[in-house]
Amino acid sequence: MGSGSVIYLDNHSSSRPCSSALERMQPYLNDHWGASFAPHKMGQELVFALDTRYQAIYDFVGAEAKETFVFTSSGAEAVNQVLWSAFLEKARKEGKCHFIATGLEDAPTMQMMQRLEEFGCFVKIAPVDRFGRVDLEQLASLINPRTALVSATLADGLTGVVQPIEEISKICREKGVLLHADASYAVGKLYLSFSDLGVDYLTFSGDRIHAVKGSGGLFAKEGSPLHPLILGGTGLRGGAFDIPSFMALSAAASQAQLFLDMMGLETARLRDLFESELVTQVGAIPLFADELRLSNTSAIAFPNVHAESLLYLLNRKGIYASIGGPYAQHLSRLLLAAKVEERTALCAVSFALSRYTTEEEIAKAVAAIVESVRHLRTLSEGLF
Amino acid sequence: MGSGSVIYLDNHSSSRPCSSALERMQPYLNDHWGASFAPHKMGQELVFALDTRYQAIYDFVGAEAKETFVFTSSGAEAVNQVLWSAFLEKARKEGKCHFIATGLEDAPTMQMMQRLEEFGCFVKIAPVDRFGRVDLEQLASLINPRTALVSATLADGLTGVVQPIEEISKICREKGVLLHADASYAVGKLYLSFSDLGVDYLTFSGDRIHAVKGSGGLFAKEGSPLHPLILGGTGLRGGAFDIPSFMALSAAASQAQLFLDMMGLETARLRDLFESELVTQVGAIPLFADELRLSNTSAIAFPNVHAESLLYLLNRKGIYASIGGPYAQHLSRLLLAAKVEERTALCAVSFALSRYTTEEEIAKAVAAIVESVRHLRTLSEGLF
Repeated sequence: MGSGSVIYLDNHSSSRPCSSALERMQPYLNDHWGASFAPHKMGQELVFALDTRYQAIYDFVGAEAKETFVFTSSGAEAVNQVLWSAFLEKARKEGKCHFIATGLEDAPTMQMMQRLEEFGCFVKIAPVDRFGRVDLEQLASLINPRTALVSATLADGLTGVVQPIEEISKICREKGVLLHADASYAVGKLYLSFSDLGVDYLTFSGDRIHAVKGSGGLFAKEGSPLHPLILGGTGLRGGAFDIPSFMALSAAASQAQLFLDMMGLETARLRDLFESELVTQVGAIPLFADELRLSNTSAIAFPNVHAESLLYLLNRKGIYASIGGPYAQHLSRLLLAAKVEERTALCAVSFALSRYTTEEEIAKAVAAIVESVRHLRTLSEGLF
Repeated sequence: MGSGSVIYLDNHSSSRPCSSALERMQPYLNDHWGASFAPHKMGQELVFALDTRYQAIYDFVGAEAKETFVFTSSGAEAVNQVLWSAFLEKARKEGKCHFIATGLEDAPTMQMMQRLEEFGCFVKIAPVDRFGRVDLEQLASLINPRTALVSATLADGLTGVVQPIEEISKICREKGVLLHADASYAVGKLYLSFSDLGVDYLTFSGDRIHAVKGSGGLFAKEGSPLHPLILGGTGLRGGAFDIPSFMALSAAASQAQLFLDMMGLETARLRDLFESELVTQVGAIPLFADELRLSNTSAIAFPNVHAESLLYLLNRKGIYASIGGPYAQHLSRLLLAAKVEERTALCAVSFALSRYTTEEEIAKAVAAIVESVRHLRTLSEGLF
């Protein structure tokens, strides 16, 4: 990042690769670069090296050996593969051509749902309630005998609101519907047990847990339909196996697990400090603050300040935050859908801390935000 | 690779990342790791950085600015996206549900063709002639008014035989059929002009041109149908853009272009030296030696020596070669299809040099092969 004045609070979009991930991948860039399918030493040595590194990823999400992991090039690819697998198996073979997504899903889920519609499927969106959670009653009422799969995020990336996955899972199991949990924002922040969650699939993105871009993955329960999205070769994903990125993911998963307590305690403390300072100094409104939220995430409304103007000013001061889109939802639209008043929804910015965020950074960010908010309020006086 | 005794002649499977590629990617792993879609400085600086690096890839394949490039995670993904795009547009919208592949295609093409069959398409394979090339007459006769696309490799990876792409292109244009050229083995070895080739799509893999695994790409002519395979976000590929791997691909493409002359002269000289020594010393038979071949590739039959036994012995001596599969074709099957006699086909091993291959390595490889061949012939005396 170079300049010490930069404060990165956009960890929902991407996160700094940790040194452990970068160190682990180097030997596979520099020396052990063979193709893992090659039947000679330079290929076969990789098979052994890979084998020992899968465990860290299984441990990270609490998966058992009998469950299937597929390494992918991104969380988006993982989501695509899961929905596509359900389509190939359920819609094409069993005629179950009805799919449900919650109103909190990111672009990969929503666009893949659109593609399934082009292939003759029917898609329904389960709405969000005023607590920022998917409405369980409405979700249940959308399921019909032809429903193949429900796709639900474990936690929203912009508001941090943790979703009631156990209840969703109960509904899906009762009705015999597959359940995909998008864990991209939740992994590394929540204690997870894939084996106990009651979901059929779990997907996540490496670049949000301090691995590298070009890494992600999916877990599938034993027996859940799974097909390649990218064909070409053996196994569940075609093409050359990207060993360096896989190694980075494995190392990052280990590190993220080590730091889980820190994320839940110290990062949560900094997030709460951040929020309370902004409440005190400029009357900011932390959204869904009474709900169960990811420890690192905060959507905050600044009354009488347009979110985009604030984001612009903060950007100039080297403070990076988010208002969502194009990969994620737009924060304001999501808040409107959750029945947040329009004048609050349009004033909201989302901040996502990481384990690298320091108290000094939080103090600086607060000072810069306070200054910017006061400045913008002078300009907008009478407009709101 | 550590040990100096290792000689890598399996560059069709994967190749050593060049230092230029590794150096170029480092800053994007260590410092500039933001998401390129983020609307703040850490995202936007990447947009500018990316912009300047596309040109090297366009120059590498001789593409013009109006043509579309999509960066993918592998050559396999690129092939999948091309065939899927043709399916979505031609088969689904226009009812053109007939696809053709040559008998030389790798697993991504062949498996994607199988998937298209599952979606109601008809697939035909154009056979290989005794010169190791696709049979043009037969290819032409397979095309019918419902043919959507022909998929043809520019050169075979195992035999090195360059395919008559101009003639294929002429046939396809006359009949109004899309043409996909798989350039994974050809790029960096042949002078290419995508704009002049007359093909609609060109795909290639980064890890075969000294970039990194997790890199590849496709070019599409202006107006050729193109859709995302991985959905989620804007543009033609969803998910976080893998900037480090893209940077490595761009640097590797520049380097490969610089070394094109060397590949055509020095590498060809070493390959010819390799072949002639083996002919002289153990009566080896270089296959398709009179055809136009990639300068770095040699399929060689060693009469009375079983290819797998030879590969095994060479592996123990640190000399890595290939007999194909599972990503590529099996060399023996490919040779049988090209009407090579069975006793020759079963004795053939493929070697692929790179610009890093030295004359000293060739001399050592020859000595080791000669020793191994003589040893195996002692054992197999009377068996053939």
